[in-house]
Amino acid sequence: MDESWFVEKHTPHAGLTLAVRQKLFEAKSPYQSLEVLDTHEYGRMLLLDGYVMLTERDEFIYHEMIVHPALLSHAGAERVLIVGGGDGGSVREVLKHSTVQSVHLVEIDRMVIDASREFFPAVSAKLDDARVEVRVADGFDHVAEARDAYDVIIVDSIDPMGEAAKLFSAPFYDHAKKALRKGGIFVCQTESPFYNGEVVKGVLEKLGALYAHAAPYLAHIPTYPSGLWSFCFASDAVDPHAAEPQADAPFIPRLKYYTPAMFRAAFTPPKYLSDALRPDAAE
Amino acid sequence: MDESWFVEKHTPHAGLTLAVRQKLFEAKSPYQSLEVLDTHEYGRMLLLDGYVMLTERDEFIYHEMIVHPALLSHAGAERVLIVGGGDGGSVREVLKHSTVQSVHLVEIDRMVIDASREFFPAVSAKLDDARVEVRVADGFDHVAEARDAYDVIIVDSIDPMGEAAKLFSAPFYDHAKKALRKGGIFVCQTESPFYNGEVVKGVLEKLGALYAHAAPYLAHIPTYPSGLWSFCFASDAVDPHAAEPQADAPFIPRLKYYTPAMFRAAFTPPKYLSDALRPDAAE
Repeated sequence: MDESWFVEKHTPHAGLTLAVRQKLFEAKSPYQSLEVLDTHEYGRMLLLDGYVMLTERDEFIYHEMIVHPALLSHAGAERVLIVGGGDGGSVREVLKHSTVQSVHLVEIDRMVIDASREFFPAVSAKLDDARVEVRVADGFDHVAEARDAYDVIIVDSIDPMGEAAKLFSAPFYDHAKKALRKGGIFVCQTESPFYNGEVVKGVLEKLGALYAHAAPYLAHIPTYPSGLWSFCFASDAVDPHAAEPQADAPFIPRLKYYTPAMFRAAFTPPKYLSDALRPDAAE
Repeated sequence: MDESWFVEKHTPHAGLTLAVRQKLFEAKSPYQSLEVLDTHEYGRMLLLDGYVMLTERDEFIYHEMIVHPALLSHAGAERVLIVGGGDGGSVREVLKHSTVQSVHLVEIDRMVIDASREFFPAVSAKLDDARVEVRVADGFDHVAEARDAYDVIIVDSIDPMGEAAKLFSAPFYDHAKKALRKGGIFVCQTESPFYNGEVVKGVLEKLGALYAHAAPYLAHIPTYPSGLWSFCFASDAVDPHAAEPQADAPFIPRLKYYTPAMFRAAFTPPKYLSDALRPDAAE
């Protein structure tokens, strides 16, 4: 295997490999390294510290699925907070909802925003929408200062390492609960349920202590570890297993992954994940 | 990346890579090459012509999902045919159903059966069950000669290349229909819906011309291309979208992927697959 193949190790012993046409960009910020590679199979790819954040070909799955289950089951969300997500993909999906009046994007690393604007125009296109306020700031601090401010909070973060670890902590979840308005919904990404069921379990235990309802849901993302990805959904007002999410929003027929039927399917874990989430399972 | 890493290219430009402890076996038959590698992450792995057929760690997903949706929605299957599947994993799952009186396994390549008996005892364990008849023969010919013989036919084949291509042909499906008893169900594996939606479309069009009901269903299999795998289900008697599969079979709580709720979830395709299956989509 020559140097034109990128490898991301998903575990010390397993990984994804992609043929690379060329490296388009490389830089370091105070927080992380960033690369943009042009791959044959998945188009342009954004890496942070060597890990795949998104590719042009399959980013639609992650961004549709971190946004629409919450927004469609709230159905009246006006104010939305995105923590992380500097690439703009989640903003793009949130703005498809006609009820949304304002989106705050709080990304700690300006380099991510700038690189997405330059290399991923279809992902970052809506960052300049009049309803969007982009703040380069620490998401933890922002959430700690907010009160009754948001209908939906989406934590579109990297995995729980380094600066991002605190976005998976009980104090952060406490702050986020207080930052939600009545009827609010909290969503975060929680890694591969196949490789990292203990992450899902840890997050759900913390969210379950704060909300009437907390549940994992899943999406198949080819370039993420194991190809299966998890999100956690928490709310006092909406039980995702009983929810009837809005099914007639005019943009739904133009989505490429989510369908009204997919809502329930995504909240159906394989047995091994249910087993990993049992109170007596090892973390 | 040194020689201790196995690579399977899922497309010319994307692949899976796994660290290998050692090669345990290598041989060639008239049909294909076969290797058994011991991997760090997934345990022992069976390769045919360099493609991953199964690993110890995730084979449960494929075998549970190629067998239980059909057997649980038939609910009274006595006679089952497995075409291919020489490793024995599908036989193991079929025999969990108490109604089953006989299983015919028709595998063209004895080497697969022998290697599985030697290197994958947990997969091949039930090949010697008294209810099982193993025939080393061409599955196409076997099916062409059968009449009103089986309640469920499972095509547990390799992908449509070489000898296996005829198992994806209209004449084969015609023969299989005649080989089914009244109320019968036909199931086959149909590759990655992300990379090979045109395979799913081609199979469904052929099956849809023969059966009242034909639909794809999905399972997440980490070591298969894209991590998402498809199967097609066809029957005159059972509409999978309206089926109420048996939910109280005593073995169900011990499965590791399938759950009663998973049946419906598995039959819920992402939008991009539904789009690929439209009559006007390119094949």
